[in-house]
Amino acid sequence: MHYFEDFHTGDSFDLGSLTVTQEEIISFAQHFDSQYFHTDPERARRSIFGGLVASGWHTTALFMRMFVDSLLSHTDSIASPGINELRWLKPVRPNDTLRGRFIVTDTRVSQSRPDIGILYSHCELFNQHNELLMTFNGIHFVGRKPTESL
Amino acid sequence: MHYFEDFHTGDSFDLGSLTVTQEEIISFAQHFDSQYFHTDPERARRSIFGGLVASGWHTTALFMRMFVDSLLSHTDSIASPGINELRWLKPVRPNDTLRGRFIVTDTRVSQSRPDIGILYSHCELFNQHNELLMTFNGIHFVGRKPTESL
Repeated sequence: MHYFEDFHTGDSFDLGSLTVTQEEIISFAQHFDSQYFHTDPERARRSIFGGLVASGWHTTALFMRMFVDSLLSHTDSIASPGINELRWLKPVRPNDTLRGRFIVTDTRVSQSRPDIGILYSHCELFNQHNELLMTFNGIHFVGRKPTESL
Repeated sequence: MHYFEDFHTGDSFDLGSLTVTQEEIISFAQHFDSQYFHTDPERARRSIFGGLVASGWHTTALFMRMFVDSLLSHTDSIASPGINELRWLKPVRPNDTLRGRFIVTDTRVSQSRPDIGILYSHCELFNQHNELLMTFNGIHFVGRKPTESL
């Protein structure tokens, strides 16, 4: 289990990879973001994207899938108050293989809750062509290492 | 169909409402954010939330569902380059009935693409107790009104 004390400014974590299908892109969009360029491959050709692309909110959810699997699932993760400067730079397309990266940019102990540490991060999502698709700056509350194990 | 010229700074749009079930919260989390406070009602009682809560990324997706249904589906929506200052202020819980609001904070025509308008917005999500759960500042590219209809 990772605790706040295990993260340091400058640490960089590769979050593994996953591949997204056209069916998954359309299914997510039908539930949450049914704009035609996310649901209709034919009409999407005439959009600014030139073809079907994943919803930006599907893209953030796919990043989260990798972040949880590779890092948060074995970290004392408590909550997140939010994120800053989310940018969808290029779209996710059917059969793209995505890779995520989590870079620690700052750490501090909460003043109001000294049992909680705050991780600031820069998060990046790439495709199989090493194109940078999405970035955001994350904030996470993480448990501090129990005193007996310090 | 709404175009860029139909939106003005200060315009406020109610985005309707929807109710989210425990099953939906768990299903989303199993796909994208399988932290225990999103998937396991019993263990979640001992989390900082005191019970099961929706993933923050489920919360953004539910906002998008209302935004698309009530506004974007009849707007010449082109794309979004990103959002700023996303804040999860309070969690979404099972059986919450959510309401969304979209407030236009600025508008301008793209310098590089004069056929595209840019809408800046402040977006808000409330629950049935009128508690403010989530805010973010959105950026949207919207088509300009075709010249023949000006």
